[in-house]
Amino acid sequence: MFNRVAIIGLGLIGGSLGLALRQARAARQVAGFDLTKGVGDRARKLGAIDQSCASLAEAARGSELIILATPVSTMRSLLQQLASLASPGAVITDVASTKAQVISWAEEYLPATLSFVGGHPIAGKETSGIEAAEATLFKQCVYCLTPTKRTSPAALDRVATLIDVLGARMRFLEPPEHDGMVAGVSHLPYIASIALIHTAALNPAWDDAALLAGNGFRDMTRLAAGNPEMHRDICLTNSETITRWLADYIAILSTLRERIAMRDPNLSEVFAQAQKARNDWQEAQEQAKNNDQK
Amino acid sequence: MFNRVAIIGLGLIGGSLGLALRQARAARQVAGFDLTKGVGDRARKLGAIDQSCASLAEAARGSELIILATPVSTMRSLLQQLASLASPGAVITDVASTKAQVISWAEEYLPATLSFVGGHPIAGKETSGIEAAEATLFKQCVYCLTPTKRTSPAALDRVATLIDVLGARMRFLEPPEHDGMVAGVSHLPYIASIALIHTAALNPAWDDAALLAGNGFRDMTRLAAGNPEMHRDICLTNSETITRWLADYIAILSTLRERIAMRDPNLSEVFAQAQKARNDWQEAQEQAKNNDQK
Repeated sequence: MFNRVAIIGLGLIGGSLGLALRQARAARQVAGFDLTKGVGDRARKLGAIDQSCASLAEAARGSELIILATPVSTMRSLLQQLASLASPGAVITDVASTKAQVISWAEEYLPATLSFVGGHPIAGKETSGIEAAEATLFKQCVYCLTPTKRTSPAALDRVATLIDVLGARMRFLEPPEHDGMVAGVSHLPYIASIALIHTAALNPAWDDAALLAGNGFRDMTRLAAGNPEMHRDICLTNSETITRWLADYIAILSTLRERIAMRDPNLSEVFAQAQKARNDWQEAQEQAKNNDQK
Repeated sequence: MFNRVAIIGLGLIGGSLGLALRQARAARQVAGFDLTKGVGDRARKLGAIDQSCASLAEAARGSELIILATPVSTMRSLLQQLASLASPGAVITDVASTKAQVISWAEEYLPATLSFVGGHPIAGKETSGIEAAEATLFKQCVYCLTPTKRTSPAALDRVATLIDVLGARMRFLEPPEHDGMVAGVSHLPYIASIALIHTAALNPAWDDAALLAGNGFRDMTRLAAGNPEMHRDICLTNSETITRWLADYIAILSTLRERIAMRDPNLSEVFAQAQKARNDWQEAQEQAKNNDQK
């Protein structure tokens, strides 16, 4: 299906993409490059890539698909370099959680001989790095694409082929629309999780309280174990919408706090509404997965 | 080990206690009573109890151990009734998430011929009701006991036997100390989860955004699927400490919001501290479990 694919950044996502491509025999060759010494060799030994490249130039050379799987902050420089390093006709795609910024860089730096398709697989886990990679990480997950007027159907088609190989579910969105919604359902939950572990750990009773924390606490702080640099980049490139969602969250928490302080017996109604919203969401998720399988 | 045990309230926790007691053959007879019609019979068919009783009086009669597994709001009335219904010498224990209020009721209503031991197994899942019950629900979980000056060693010993049967890990705490710490690691996370699903579901973009919500969102809203009445009772009986923890949480969120709004590049340090705190907690948890197994 692909002749040569290059994966730039061999962490959890980049490594999992490589494993999926190789296990499906979807590419004649998967080349990989990672700035951190030794990661490329480990990725090759783990079967995530065929060739560990010593430079971006070596990985890009002759690749028809180049996947950027690094934190957003490095993508500007990668796109600048790929403008001259990528082979004419190559399709470049990324996997960043924020899309507007990356796409504006791509449109600024890439020549017309290269195509860019913004992508965002909604997948992940709390562990990071090549050792955490799994071929099935993207199975059934939503994979957002944010094509623009400049995106050619042929380029889109190449990325659609990748998504098919991964077993993911494709969705098309405008970049700002994507960033606004993902801020609510992904970036806000991360900040809520970070704030929760900070609140707990900064409390003088934490050493004792930690032992009383059960599965609920574990789930609510799982996201906080994620990669700090990746999330800093997300906050820097999606600051406005995250700030807006956080304002809403803080307002709702403040109202709940007041009602708890005044011992409002009708709190159970608010809790029941939340329970219903959560159950409705879960049902809708399952339905969407089933529909996509048909 | 026990002659006759009565379980009052046959939901997730009461049902799981019954299943564990019966599967371990730790009681000659497990009697059960639930206010909702039909629940007792279903519990018997599922093997959680031997005898489905038609009244509190019938369940209490001749029971040496009476376990209250109902929402906190009903416990006041149950303790008032058990003052005359329980057989002399019986030990009464509860499983509520807040302890100070329940213990003050027990000390107010129960005669000296009855013993009370406040308990709180830190276990649960998002589904509730007898059908969700599992014999292994308490395996390795922390089971808090909050004895007071009035708690006799013999009564404590009976409840310790129960906890051994469940395979749980016993911890002793003062009631207000328990309520303060659990407010931070259990009640606050629930409110954070409720506020998150409300924030998302009240947003005009929710219908579309819902489909982009992945595993992170799922974990962060799992607690919101819990029983609304149980959580209302928790808020009403632990209002002061929950309000205090919520104030801390809101303050930390507000600081994070300001730093995200100003695109602070040092956010990664805050995130890295949170990541470390979370990983430290998880390690401490695993170590505590291993130590208890020795």
